[in-house]
Amino acid sequence: MTTPRYTPLAASLPATVPFVGPETQERQRGAPFRARIGANESVFGPSPRAVEAMARAAADVWMYGDPENHDLRHALAAHHGVRPENVMVGEGIDGLLGYLVRLMVGPGDRVVTSLGAYPTFNYHVTGYGGEIHTVPYRDDLEDPQALFARAVEVDAKLVYLANPDNPMGSWHSGEAIVRAMDALPDGTLLVLDEAYVECAPEGSAAPVEIDDPRVVRMRTFSKVYGMAGARVGYALGAPDLISAFNKVRNHFGMSRISQAGALAALADRDWLAHVQEQIAASRERLSQIARDNGLVPLASATNFVTMDCGRDGEFARAVVDGLIARGIFVRMPFAAPQNRCIRVSCGREADMAAFAEALPGALAEAQAR
Amino acid sequence: MTTPRYTPLAASLPATVPFVGPETQERQRGAPFRARIGANESVFGPSPRAVEAMARAAADVWMYGDPENHDLRHALAAHHGVRPENVMVGEGIDGLLGYLVRLMVGPGDRVVTSLGAYPTFNYHVTGYGGEIHTVPYRDDLEDPQALFARAVEVDAKLVYLANPDNPMGSWHSGEAIVRAMDALPDGTLLVLDEAYVECAPEGSAAPVEIDDPRVVRMRTFSKVYGMAGARVGYALGAPDLISAFNKVRNHFGMSRISQAGALAALADRDWLAHVQEQIAASRERLSQIARDNGLVPLASATNFVTMDCGRDGEFARAVVDGLIARGIFVRMPFAAPQNRCIRVSCGREADMAAFAEALPGALAEAQAR
Repeated sequence: MTTPRYTPLAASLPATVPFVGPETQERQRGAPFRARIGANESVFGPSPRAVEAMARAAADVWMYGDPENHDLRHALAAHHGVRPENVMVGEGIDGLLGYLVRLMVGPGDRVVTSLGAYPTFNYHVTGYGGEIHTVPYRDDLEDPQALFARAVEVDAKLVYLANPDNPMGSWHSGEAIVRAMDALPDGTLLVLDEAYVECAPEGSAAPVEIDDPRVVRMRTFSKVYGMAGARVGYALGAPDLISAFNKVRNHFGMSRISQAGALAALADRDWLAHVQEQIAASRERLSQIARDNGLVPLASATNFVTMDCGRDGEFARAVVDGLIARGIFVRMPFAAPQNRCIRVSCGREADMAAFAEALPGALAEAQAR
Repeated sequence: MTTPRYTPLAASLPATVPFVGPETQERQRGAPFRARIGANESVFGPSPRAVEAMARAAADVWMYGDPENHDLRHALAAHHGVRPENVMVGEGIDGLLGYLVRLMVGPGDRVVTSLGAYPTFNYHVTGYGGEIHTVPYRDDLEDPQALFARAVEVDAKLVYLANPDNPMGSWHSGEAIVRAMDALPDGTLLVLDEAYVECAPEGSAAPVEIDDPRVVRMRTFSKVYGMAGARVGYALGAPDLISAFNKVRNHFGMSRISQAGALAALADRDWLAHVQEQIAASRERLSQIARDNGLVPLASATNFVTMDCGRDGEFARAVVDGLIARGIFVRMPFAAPQNRCIRVSCGREADMAAFAEALPGALAEAQAR
C-alpha cells in the first residue's frame, strides 16, 4: 500500500486542463500577445462603477465574503423579477456547473451535450464518472430536438444546451427553446447556459417559468459585464434545486471584492448598453475583416465572431497557429465539422486592427503548408 | 420519475452551512456588529501594497486569471525554498480541502480528525460519503499520537491535524509533529493545516521533507496576511499529489485580483512583521481582559485567544449569545469539553475595548440564567 490512496475514479482521470490559458501561451512564446481576443473576455472592460467598487472593497478584504451572497442574490432576484430563493451565486458558471454535476451525476450516469460544445462541462461530467453522449450540431446550430431525443434514448440525467452557443455564436429564440422542452423526458434536467444572452437579440432569453423543475439557467458576469477574472456566475431555477447547491458548495468561496463588483456592475445599465453597442460594432468590423480575407463570418449573438475558413480542421488550426505566432490570441471549435472555423472575440479598434494586419499572413502561411 | 434526479449521496446530504456568517447574524439582529472578532479574520487588514495591487488589478478583471497561477506559485516556491511543482494554489484552504477529499474519499472511506476540529473539513468528507472517526483533544491540544493510532485502527485514507490548532489556539513544535509521523500508517495521508503558522512561535512549522508523500501542508492568505475575502490558499506537497489537483480543480477558479493581491502580500515582509506584533499585543490584551473577568485565557499560537469560562458548554453558549446581543461577534468551540470556552479573535484597540466593555454584562447575564 502506498500513500496517498486515490479513489478509483480519481486514479482514472487524466491531469488535464479544459483550456490552455493565454498566459501559458505567452510564456511559451516568450512575448505578450498584441491582441487578447481568444477567450471571449470583454476587452471593453467592466463598468467603471464596478472597478471603483472593487478598488474600495480591496481594503476590506480581511473579511470573508458573505456566504449567503445576500445582497447580490437579492439584487439579481429584483433584476429578473424572481425571488431570492430562485438564485444561487457561485464562482463563475464553471464553479456552478461543477456543483450541479456533483449533485446529479455519479459513475455511469448519462449526460447529453452537443459534439464540440463547452469542454469544461464535459470535464466536470467525466470528473464525477458520468458518461457523455453527444449529438452533432445542425447547420452550425445546437439542435434542441436532437439533444432531447438523445436524452430520452440514453435516460440522461442532464442535458446541456448553450443559447446563444459557444463556439459557434449561433442562437435560437427563447420561445423555440421553451417549445422544444415539451420533448424533455421526465428525469432529465436541462442545463441552459445563457452566458452570452446579454449580447443576443431581444427574445433570445428563454421565457421559462422560474419554478419549472425541468430546467436550470446559468448566467455570468464574465462576458458582457466584463468581469471574467472576478469569478461570479449565478443559477436561476426552482427553489428546491437552488437550495440543493447548499449541500455541496464552498459556502465561503466567493471573493468579497467580486461580490461588491458584481453588485455595482448589475446596477450600471448604461455601461451594459455601451458594451452592447461596442460588441455590435466590433462584430460588424470582424465580419468585414473576415470577408476581406475570403472567410465567411457566421451570424453571431455573442461577443465573438466565428469565421468559416472553408477547409478542414487542420487548415483552421494552421490559421490559428499563424495568428498566435503573430501575437494574436484566438481559439477555434474543437470538433468537426465546426473546426473548419476560427473564433475571434470582439475587441477595441486596436485589437481589430492587429487582427486585420495579422490575418492575411496567417492565411497565406496556412495555404502554403 | 421526477426531475431532477440527485445522486443517492447528494439526496442524503443536508443543505447546510459549516458556519453562519456574521452578515447573516447582523441581518437577524438588525444592526451591525461593533466588533468583528469571531472568525479569526485579521482586523489589522492586508498589506497596503496588496490593497494597491488589488485596486490596480480591478480594471484588468475583464481577463480570466492565469489558470496555472504561475507567478504566485513561483513566488511561493521561492519563499519556501521548494520547487513550483510542490505548490498548488487554490480558492482558500476550504477549496483545496474540498479537492483533496474528492481525490481520496469515496463512500465508506475512513477519515480521522479531532472531535471539535475544523467543521469545513468534515463537511467535505461527509459530502463525498466518507466516514469520520474522531479522537478527543488531550489537555486542549490535538493529539497526534492518538490521531495516527486511530488511523491505523480504521485504515484511514486521510488524517487531519491543525497546528497551531483552531479552535483552541494550542500548538506542538514542528519537530514533534514530524517525530509523531513515524506512526503514520502506510496508505494514510496527513493533512497538516498550518493556517495559523505565521503567528506561531519559531519552530512551529513542521520541517517535513517537501517530497514526503505521506503529508500535504495547507497554508493561507486568509489569516495573518489579512486576505480572507480574497480566497487564496495553497498546498505544499510531493509533485505527484500536487499534480493530482489538476484532475479535479476548477482551473479558472482563481480571482485575478486575488492572485495580484497575494503576490504583493507575500513580498511585503514588513507588513507581516507588523501584523505579527499587533497579534502578539492583542493576545496579551485579550488575556488580561479574560483574567480581569475571572476567565482563564489559554496560551495561543494563533490570532485568537480561547478563554475557559470554567463551566459547561451551555454556559459558554450563553456568554457568546450575550456578547453577540451586545454587538460583539465571537464564536466558541463545538464539542465538549472544549466548548466550555469562548474564542475571541485579535483586533485593534477599539475592538478590544468594545469586548472589554461587553464581557462583564454578558457574563453576569449568563450567570443569572
